[in-house]
Amino acid sequence: MSARLLDGTAVAAQIRAEVGPRVAAFAARARRPPGLGIVLVGDNPASETYIAGKVKAAAGVGLRIDLERLPATASLAQLLGIVERLNGSDVYDGILVQSPLPEAMGAGAERRVFDVIHPAKDVDGFHPINVGRLMQNRATLIACTPSGIMELLERSQIAIAGTRAVVIGRSDIVGKPTAILLLHRHATVTMCHSRTPDLPAIAREADLLVAAIGRPAFVTPAFIKGGATVVDVGITRLTDRAQVERIVGAGSKRLQDFERRGSVVIGDVHPSVAEVAGALTPVPGGVGPLTVAMLLKNTVTAAEERFKARGR
Amino acid sequence: MSARLLDGTAVAAQIRAEVGPRVAAFAARARRPPGLGIVLVGDNPASETYIAGKVKAAAGVGLRIDLERLPATASLAQLLGIVERLNGSDVYDGILVQSPLPEAMGAGAERRVFDVIHPAKDVDGFHPINVGRLMQNRATLIACTPSGIMELLERSQIAIAGTRAVVIGRSDIVGKPTAILLLHRHATVTMCHSRTPDLPAIAREADLLVAAIGRPAFVTPAFIKGGATVVDVGITRLTDRAQVERIVGAGSKRLQDFERRGSVVIGDVHPSVAEVAGALTPVPGGVGPLTVAMLLKNTVTAAEERFKARGR
Repeated sequence: MSARLLDGTAVAAQIRAEVGPRVAAFAARARRPPGLGIVLVGDNPASETYIAGKVKAAAGVGLRIDLERLPATASLAQLLGIVERLNGSDVYDGILVQSPLPEAMGAGAERRVFDVIHPAKDVDGFHPINVGRLMQNRATLIACTPSGIMELLERSQIAIAGTRAVVIGRSDIVGKPTAILLLHRHATVTMCHSRTPDLPAIAREADLLVAAIGRPAFVTPAFIKGGATVVDVGITRLTDRAQVERIVGAGSKRLQDFERRGSVVIGDVHPSVAEVAGALTPVPGGVGPLTVAMLLKNTVTAAEERFKARGR
Repeated sequence: MSARLLDGTAVAAQIRAEVGPRVAAFAARARRPPGLGIVLVGDNPASETYIAGKVKAAAGVGLRIDLERLPATASLAQLLGIVERLNGSDVYDGILVQSPLPEAMGAGAERRVFDVIHPAKDVDGFHPINVGRLMQNRATLIACTPSGIMELLERSQIAIAGTRAVVIGRSDIVGKPTAILLLHRHATVTMCHSRTPDLPAIAREADLLVAAIGRPAFVTPAFIKGGATVVDVGITRLTDRAQVERIVGAGSKRLQDFERRGSVVIGDVHPSVAEVAGALTPVPGGVGPLTVAMLLKNTVTAAEERFKARGR
C-alpha cells in the first residue's frame, strides 16, 4: 500500500472550524443563527443516516437546523407547499430536500422541487440558475460534493492546473459539475461515461482521476497511471459477504467490519488501486465528510449573502 | 485536398426552410409574426455586418425584426432600460443585445445585460438559467453556435456517440456548451485550453475536433488524427498580406480574394488540415451560417413556448 490517503475527515474538520466563527459573527449581526430547513419524505434508511449526520454537524457549528418530515404517501403538492413556506420564511437561509424522493411522487418530482427552491437558499446548488452560474464560473452556491472534492484536493496540496483530469460519470450532481470546476482550475478535463470505449486506457491518461459512477470497486489498477491522484466518490452499501470478500480480500480489516455489522460501504475504486496510485481518497473518510462540511459552508454563505442583499 | 467539406450554407438553408412554416403557423394562430428585438450599441463594423446578416435572414423567413441603436456613449442604465422595455413588450419573443458592448460601458456590462434579458426571450441562450438547463440536458434555448454545430454534424451524418471529441477553447459562448452538448450525445469529451500541455498530442486523440479559440490557422495537421472530423469555429479577419499569404499560400484562390477585398476571414484551422482530416467545416460557409439559422429557430421556438405558456 503506497498511495497517500487524502484525509477527508480532517479537511472537513478544518472547514467546520472556519464555518463556526462565521456562524457566530452572523448570529451577532442578525440576532439569529443561520438556519437550514431540511425536508425528508418517507423513511429511506440511507436518507435517515445522511440526515442524522447533517443535523449533528450543523448543531456542532451553531447552525439552526429544522427537519420537516412527510410520510412516503405525501403528494408532490404537499412537498411544494412546504418548500414555498421555507422560501418565504426569514428563519431559513438554506433549504434542502433530501434525495431520493419516493417513487410514488412521480418521475420528475425531484426536478420540480429543486426548481422551486429559491436560488438564494439553494444550498444543494441544484437550481438551474446556480448550475448556470457554476458553468459561467461565478457561482456562490455550488453542489456540495463537487465543491467538497475541490476543497479536499486544494487543502491536500494536490496540483490541478496543467494536469490531465479524467472524470468517470456524467451525473448532474457530481460528474458534470466536477469536470467544470476542474476546468476552471486549469486542468485539461476528459468526461467519460458508460458509453466510453476503452475506458481503462482513457483513465490511464489521468494525473487526476475522479470516479463517480456508483459501481463498487469498478476502477481497478488497470485504470491508473502510476502515481496518479484518485478521487473516489462512490458509496455503495454491500450486504453480500462473497462479493465483499472478493473486493476487500479474505482476512482484511474491512471484512472484519462487515462480519461485525452485516454490511460495508464500498467506493467506486478497488482497494488494490492504493498500490499504484500516488494519492487516494478513502471510502469512508474521503469525499463523504466534505459533502456535509460544504453544506454547512453553503448555509452560512447563503445567510451572509441574504443579509448583505438587504443592506442591513 | 481530401477532406469532405461540411456545407454549413446548405444546412442553414434546410433549417430556414423548416423555420418558415413554423413562423407562418405561429402568425396564423397569434395574429402576429414572431418578433426579434435586436439592440446594437455603438458602431463596431463587424457587429454591423453580423446584424445585417441576421436582419436579412429573419426577413427571409417572415420574422419581425426590429433594430434599436444606441450611441457608443450610451450608459449601461439606458441599455438596461431598453432591455426591460423589450422584456415587457408582447411584440418581441426574442431579444438579442449584440456583443461586444463598448468598453466605456464598463467591465461586466455584458454579463449584467444578459442577466436581465427574460429567460423566455433569451434567444442567445446566455442567461444563467438557460445555461443551467443546458447543463441539465433540458434546455429549450441554447446558444446558437454550439447548437448550430450539433445541427451541422447531425445533418451531415457525422457520428458523435461513442467517439472521442476534443474541444479546444473554454469560452462560455462556444467551448464549454459545445463540450456539454457533445457529452449529452454520448461522446467522450476532452476540454482543452491555453494551459493544456502538449495540445497537439491531445487533439490527435480526437475523432471529432472542435477549434474555438480565435487564433487564426492555429490548428495544423500535427493536431489531427487522419480521417478525423474538424469543426472550425474561428472567424478572424486578417488584413496583413504577408500573414495571409503564409496561411493560404501564394497563388491560392483565397489570396486572390484578399487582393480584391483587402481582408479575408481565417478560421482557427490551417487550410492544410484539409489534407489529413476526413471532414472539415470551411471558413466561411461552415459554422457561421448555422449560428444565424439557429437564432431564427430559437426565436420561433421562444414565440411558440410563450404562446403555449399562456394557454391561448
